Formats: sequence, structure tokens, C-alpha cells
Amino acid sequence: MNVRQRALEAKAAARILARQSRARKDAALDAIARGLLAERASIESANDDDVRRARQAGLSSALVERLVLSGDRVAALAQAVLHVAGLPDPVGSRGPMQRLQNGLLVGKQRLPLGLIAIVYESRPNVTVDAAALTLKSGNAVLLRGGKEAASTNAVLVDIMRRALGDRDLPEASVSFVPPGDREEIRELCGLTDLVDLAIPRGGEGLIRFVTEVARVPVIKHYKGVCHLYLDESAELEMALPLTLNAKVHRPGVCNALECLLVHHLAAPRLLPEIARALSAEGVELRACERARALVPTAHAATAEDFGAEFLDKILAIRVVDDLDAALLHVERYGSNHTEAICTNQHDHAERWLAEVDASCVVVNASTRFNDGGELGLGAEMGISTSKLHAYGPMGLESLTSEKWIVLGQGQVRS
Amino acid sequence: MNVRQRALEAKAAARILARQSRARKDAALDAIARGLLAERASIESANDDDVRRARQAGLSSALVERLVLSGDRVAALAQAVLHVAGLPDPVGSRGPMQRLQNGLLVGKQRLPLGLIAIVYESRPNVTVDAAALTLKSGNAVLLRGGKEAASTNAVLVDIMRRALGDRDLPEASVSFVPPGDREEIRELCGLTDLVDLAIPRGGEGLIRFVTEVARVPVIKHYKGVCHLYLDESAELEMALPLTLNAKVHRPGVCNALECLLVHHLAAPRLLPEIARALSAEGVELRACERARALVPTAHAATAEDFGAEFLDKILAIRVVDDLDAALLHVERYGSNHTEAICTNQHDHAERWLAEVDASCVVVNASTRFNDGGELGLGAEMGISTSKLHAYGPMGLESLTSEKWIVLGQGQVRS
Repeated sequence: MNVRQRALEAKAAARILARQSRARKDAALDAIARGLLAERASIESANDDDVRRARQAGLSSALVERLVLSGDRVAALAQAVLHVAGLPDPVGSRGPMQRLQNGLLVGKQRLPLGLIAIVYESRPNVTVDAAALTLKSGNAVLLRGGKEAASTNAVLVDIMRRALGDRDLPEASVSFVPPGDREEIRELCGLTDLVDLAIPRGGEGLIRFVTEVARVPVIKHYKGVCHLYLDESAELEMALPLTLNAKVHRPGVCNALECLLVHHLAAPRLLPEIARALSAEGVELRACERARALVPTAHAATAEDFGAEFLDKILAIRVVDDLDAALLHVERYGSNHTEAICTNQHDHAERWLAEVDASCVVVNASTRFNDGGELGLGAEMGISTSKLHAYGPMGLESLTSEKWIVLGQGQVRS
Repeated sequence: MNVRQRALEAKAAARILARQSRARKDAALDAIARGLLAERASIESANDDDVRRARQAGLSSALVERLVLSGDRVAALAQAVLHVAGLPDPVGSRGPMQRLQNGLLVGKQRLPLGLIAIVYESRPNVTVDAAALTLKSGNAVLLRGGKEAASTNAVLVDIMRRALGDRDLPEASVSFVPPGDREEIRELCGLTDLVDLAIPRGGEGLIRFVTEVARVPVIKHYKGVCHLYLDESAELEMALPLTLNAKVHRPGVCNALECLLVHHLAAPRLLPEIARALSAEGVELRACERARALVPTAHAATAEDFGAEFLDKILAIRVVDDLDAALLHVERYGSNHTEAICTNQHDHAERWLAEVDASCVVVNASTRFNDGGELGLGAEMGISTSKLHAYGPMGLESLTSEKWIVLGQGQVRS
């Protein structure tokens, strides 16, 4: 079956899914979770094949690690599906309805987007997470996973489709496009009459490819170059834990800190101690000249260190003249992901909130909080750093849209 | 200056506009309105040139009529700008903020999109309307108007830029791309690093061209094939005025009625009288066989009449078996624009609201209400029939996005 045929089937399924009750969708999610647990052995066996092939092909241990579904991981997948079942259903919810002068009652009601294509790389848990979130929000999904996880993904999709069939929902609600040479991605993301949204998840190369070839709308997240600005009034007892947590809690993720900015009057008071603590955690410091005067052990930062996404225990440090200089640095080097300030001055906090253009703007907290789970979304489909439709962590609501509804008693327009 | 240079200047202006207060933006709008009134003579003179050239080029009288800016039309343009100044500023507004268990206060705050490209055809009022709406919402705009209105648009843009300069706002906030052979549209809509959104307005050909060549996000509206379904319980005293208003009030607009669906049990009671009233208004009826049995004067509908956007005093009529058949017809032939039901049955109204996928779903009112002004938006940038970001009439809010904001007291993630 070619890509267009799969998309046609999935689109037909989307029309049916759009009008299912929460109870029916949750029952299907429950069946999927049970299926995953019941067929854990075949999932793990397919995954063993994928992992063996990946090792033979010489994939890095980090990539192989992302691929592995063993131990508690299948149970965790099933648990995540049940968690999604427990979340509120966004479809059909109505915002405030206003009574107009002519008596019309007008407002908005949520509806699914339709057919969503997810293009991703090795991690097979995306297969199940994405299917659960799209199903709950009344959308059909076309999954195009990576070659490395092809066997695992095939088994996971098969289990989910059978569970849907058992609950009298269309199996094509969860559809799969076998990975080839990327031409199938071009075809998939060109189906403007069938695919309502494409979400690429993975490395920058894949995301740029999808953006370049897509004719359908794309929501994406390139990278996270996150800053923390320590304002003149910042106190060490808050600045130190915010910096440490943002940098060393999980250096390899997109909301980790990559660059510390410090007000020049606060720097002598804050930087030496913060640098000591970071060094003790094994963080390599790359600092501007003014910062190195206070932290002689730091390396000299090069031009490339500002704006870099290290995803590692490396931190760029820059001393700045004032809030304006910090805002300018973030505008120039930031990636619209997460930008934090540590300050005691209310007007500076408000300026930061107003002027920084990022999916999440933070005052006096760690950059690590830019995450769907942490922000109360229950689950997340990814973090958008583009402003159209969704900006920041995307939960179930981001997988829906709103239509206008008008309730009248025979009104005509004059 | 080439397209990219203009976009670079406009993008720099967008960064400045994003942090302007409502008072400063409103003052600039006020200056624009005054400028338009003060320079009415030069606007009309340039417009005369455009109109003369259009007549010489043999444009249809309907197209020439769209081009004309004379009589009260300049004053109306200025009035529309002042009206936008009076609307609330969406930028900086915050939705509900939630206190999480760890004490973080999280929510969303509105911000401008950035740089918006508007690609449109002959009507020069779009030049001023679009500039006013984008300015009010803190965005810069790149206007690519039609060749026919080139002289008028040049004068309008010049007046607006001088008004911005007088109020110390960047003139490049309102920028213009001279119309050429459409290659400049391709270039403009390919500037993924500068243009945040493209909105095409005009005929289906232009909109399809923009969608095809764009690499930046596009919000569009192809056409309006609007239906009204008269349910079994519909009463003539409501069904008749709803049908007449939707069809004859302004047949040439996108929210006008194009196809009437009637429940077969209600048809004998409703159709003859509705058909008489429509015929008296000069409406040509194209009906299915079951409808023609009740309305012998109607022409036989061909397959092409269902799904057609007549934009004229022509109406397709079809008798259907029940609500399910009506829903199926709308799903197959509708254009996701406006779909109305006339019913007395609550469960049928609710099914219509839940199951119809259209930018505006109407119960017991005219389809003509799908309009930003009528729905209380104050002003509209167009009607989106695609679901991403905006669905239905786009007001000021649709020209903004929401970023997450997090207010803490030193919280770190564990």
C-alpha cells in the first residue's frame, strides 16, 4: 500500500474518530495498554532484533540506548497510555459563550485537527505516546518512525491496531508508513488534501528536511539555547541553585541551561561562588573576558560559544552591562525556547516577561520547568518554538482547534 | 531595494513594535487616520490613474468597482483605522494563571507574531485595513498588493509610513513589495527566517499559488460553499427568512448560501413556499429530482451544482432522508466555511454542532453571521478555513500567539 492510500484510509478513520465519545476513546486506550502488557514478549523480541542490528551497524551507544525497550520500559509505555486515558477530553469543550445584542449566543467549540503525521527517529516510545495523544484528542495519526526501530514499531502498531479493532474503532486510526529513503517523508508531507499537520521529532537535520519539503502545516522545535540572566539584585542563595539545576540536572535535554548572563555589578558577588559549584559538578566554563577576570579557571569563550546548544556539561558565561544588554543577547543568541531571569526587581521581571520572545519565559525558577508535565499539561507531544498555532509544550489541546458556534432563534442579518 | 532587504527592515521594525504600549500604537493609528483625511486629494488622484489604466486594460466593471476609492471611501478608510484604535490591545494580556503544587504560578501571555506578509489583489482598502490591524497587534506588515492598485497603494503606504515616523515608530512597520510577475511572491513567502505568517487574500488562483510556493506558514480561505439544512421539525416562519437572508442579502460573498438541504418529511410543507419566495427574488433554483417533484419550476441540478460556489442568485436544492444524510452531504460538498441547521430538536442541534467540521457552525440563524464584525471581533483580517492557528474570522487576537510564563520563588526541578 503506498503512502497516499494509507493516508486516505487514515483520513477516513479521522472522520469517524472525531465524533467518538470520551468513554469510547478511553476504552480503546485501555485496550491498547492491556495489549502492550499482554504482548510484552513479542515487543521485546522485535526490539532485540532492532538493537542487534543497530549495534552491528555501529550506532553510538547513546543512540542504541534510546532504542531499547526492555526491563520496565514496556510497562511504563502502558502506564503512559493509561495516564492519557485519565486526562480530560478537549474535544467538544466550549469556551465562554457571549450573548450579542441581537440575541445570538456565540462562542467556540473544540474539534480535532484531523490527520496528524508524526515523523521521528529512533525512540520507539514515541510510537505509543503519539498514538495515545492523537487518539485521545480525536485525531488519526500517520507514524513514520526511524529505520533503526522498524521491527519494534511494526509490532507496537500492530498491537494498537488490533486493540482499536476490538473496540470497534477503525484500525487505520493508527497508521504506519514504513521508513525508506526519506522520499516517503516528502510524499507524506505533501498530501495537502489529507494531512492536517506534520510534527517532526528528532535531530535538527530531520526537522529541517521536513520543514523544507512540507506543503502541509508543520509544528517544530529546532533546538534549545536557554539563558539565565542574573540581574543586579539577584541573591546568591537563589541564583546558585537555579544555575546548578538548569545546567547539571539533565545537561542533554532541550530546556537545560547553555549560557549564563550576569549583571556586571552582581558578577563579583555571584560569579566566583557559582563557578566553583559548577566546576565541582564537572561543568566546563567558557567565559567572556570580564567574567574570566573573576573566574580565572574559566576558558576564554569563542564567538561560537554564544548561541551554542552544548547538550553537555559546558556553560557559556557572559557579563553584561544591564537588563537591556541581557535582552539584546537573548534576542540575538536565543532559540525562542526557554529564557529565565533571577531578579528581585518587579519592573525588571515584568520587562523580561513582556519583551522576551520565547515559548516559555521564566522568573526566579529553573529553565527545566519548560515541560508539558511540569506545566500541568498531563502529557506532551513536544515543544513548539514556532509561534503559529502552538508555542511551547503541546498537550492534548494543541492537537485540537476551535470552531465558532452560533446559537440563534431565527436571526437574520440586516 | 529587493524583497529580502525590505523584509529585513520590516523584521527589525517588528521587534520594536512588539514592545510598544497600547497608547503609542493608538496614537500612530490616529496619525494615520488624520493623514488619510488630509491627503485625500492625492489618494483620489492616484486612484483615478489606477482606475483609468484598469478600464483601458479592459478589466470587468466588477473588478474596476473594487478598485475605486472615491466619494466617502477615503473617509470610511480613516474611520476604520480609528475603529481599530478603539479596540482592546491583545498584546500582553494574560490568561488564567494556575498555582502549581510546587508554588509556581504558570499561565500564558499574548505576544505579536512578528512580521506578517499580506498578498492580495485589487482592493486598496486591504492596504489600510491590514496595516491598521497588524500595527494594533504589534506586528510589522509586508504588503504585496495587486498591480491594478499600484499607484493608490503607493500613496496609501507613503501616508502611513510618514504618520508612523511622525510618532517615532519605525516607518518599516508598514512595508510594501511592488507587484511584479509573482516571482516576488515566491521570494516573499520563502523567507522562513524573516516572515512569520503569510495571509493571501483574493481569488482562488492567487491563494493556491501562495499555498504552493510558500515555505512560511500560511492562513487561507479558499471558498465558501455554505449549506442550510432544514430539519424535519423546522418551521416555515423561521426556515423561510433564514433561507432568503442567507441567499439574497448579498449573494456575492463567501458566507452566502449556496445549497439548501431539506428533510424529506418537511419538504412538502416547506419547499413550495420557500421556492416561490426565492423565485420572486430572482433566484434560479437547481434542484434534485425529489425537490423538483415539489417545485416543478426548478431546473434539474447537475452533479456540479452540489459543491459549487455560485456567488450569484443561484441555489442548489436537495431533499435528504435525515440528519445523517445532511451531515454526509455537508462533509462531502462543504468547504469548511459556514454550515447552518434549522431545527427544533435539541439533540439534532447538538449533533450538528458536534459533528460538522466548519469554521462556523450555526443553529437557527443565517449563514451571513460568519463575519468578524457580526461575531463581536470588532474587525477582521479574513476568514480562515484551515484549522491550524485560526479557524473562522480572524480578529486582532488571531494575529498574536501565546507564550508560557512561569513565576517562581527560586524553584528548581527535582
